[in-house]
Amino acid sequence: MRAELHDELDGLSALLVEMTRLVGSAISKATMALLDADLTLAESVISADERVDALHLEFEERSLGLLMLQQPGAADLRVIVTGLRMSSDLERMGDLARHIAKLSRMRHPRSAIPVQLRETVLEMGQVAEHIVAKTGSVIARRDLAAAAELEADDDAMDTLHRQLFTMILDDQWPHGVEPAVDVTLCGRYYERYADHAVSVARRVVFLVTGQRVLN
Amino acid sequence: MRAELHDELDGLSALLVEMTRLVGSAISKATMALLDADLTLAESVISADERVDALHLEFEERSLGLLMLQQPGAADLRVIVTGLRMSSDLERMGDLARHIAKLSRMRHPRSAIPVQLRETVLEMGQVAEHIVAKTGSVIARRDLAAAAELEADDDAMDTLHRQLFTMILDDQWPHGVEPAVDVTLCGRYYERYADHAVSVARRVVFLVTGQRVLN
Repeated sequence: MRAELHDELDGLSALLVEMTRLVGSAISKATMALLDADLTLAESVISADERVDALHLEFEERSLGLLMLQQPGAADLRVIVTGLRMSSDLERMGDLARHIAKLSRMRHPRSAIPVQLRETVLEMGQVAEHIVAKTGSVIARRDLAAAAELEADDDAMDTLHRQLFTMILDDQWPHGVEPAVDVTLCGRYYERYADHAVSVARRVVFLVTGQRVLN
Repeated sequence: MRAELHDELDGLSALLVEMTRLVGSAISKATMALLDADLTLAESVISADERVDALHLEFEERSLGLLMLQQPGAADLRVIVTGLRMSSDLERMGDLARHIAKLSRMRHPRSAIPVQLRETVLEMGQVAEHIVAKTGSVIARRDLAAAAELEADDDAMDTLHRQLFTMILDDQWPHGVEPAVDVTLCGRYYERYADHAVSVARRVVFLVTGQRVLN
């Protein structure tokens, strides 16, 4: 019974790792779609999000099954309940990547991001990818060193986010309101994506060490 | 044992209702703070959010306690796990009200919202209040009629949100980029707030009827 419970817990953990992989691929493609105004890529991100949603539902159903049939003890119970929250965060990250892809689709054939901001947005996309890859390692191998790095990565994302605002709020901003609105929304999506990823990693840290990472 | 379990489930439900009341009060005050550039009110919303966060943690701990000690059956298990998600949604709604209050504080002593958009933002605030009040009734009394109304309320919110964009993207928009960015963020916060509230109500409907409300 216990061995079965732990096999299933490993299975649930693998499901979360697979979700990080999918939402990592989604944010990477969404960034390319956004910067290159690539409609096909944008469509592929939008339709691929269904898979993340399906894994989220599968996670929930299998967790309920475990709670029902295996009567896990205190520690395993916490793992399952925390896993449910992590799965929600990952599902939301998929939505945010999809939002970016939808913005790219909406402005096609031009890019929603003016040329001089693309470097910053590209960096936000890359930081998001690094963060989610580390979050995957944190789940897969309880890699606390990677978890510690995530706090600095999240700060880097916040700095890039502030840079975007500095650029669009500059008196010399030449692009008018619509691109400013698009950049505002995109910036928010990347920042929320990173927040959710960091929150997933913090939950793992809390499970492993019992220390809540405040921030 | 069963009676004790059901008393505690009622207690958890009351906690969620109290959270809806607190985040309802928060969005109402945040809207006033935003439109009237009322710094004191903004500060009170920002500091009151701690209470919502504390209730969210209390909900989680008490749910874990129940899962551990009472070995609930399948139906009660689903109630507890769904409650954990609802508590997360409500906690997030508190954050969103706090974001609005912070924007109000940042632009004080002027209002972040230009005069001709205040009517629309006021309506968004009011729709948000109605939605969260109904969500409270749905939790407290499993009021499926109120739950059904929420879908139309959510559509009303989306319509108001689109109106905001129409106004800021109009060629005649006279306020420049910064107010457009502020309005974009506020609009997003109200819309997300409503989405979370509707999602809480849908979870109750799913518990009661077994029907997932797709949208």
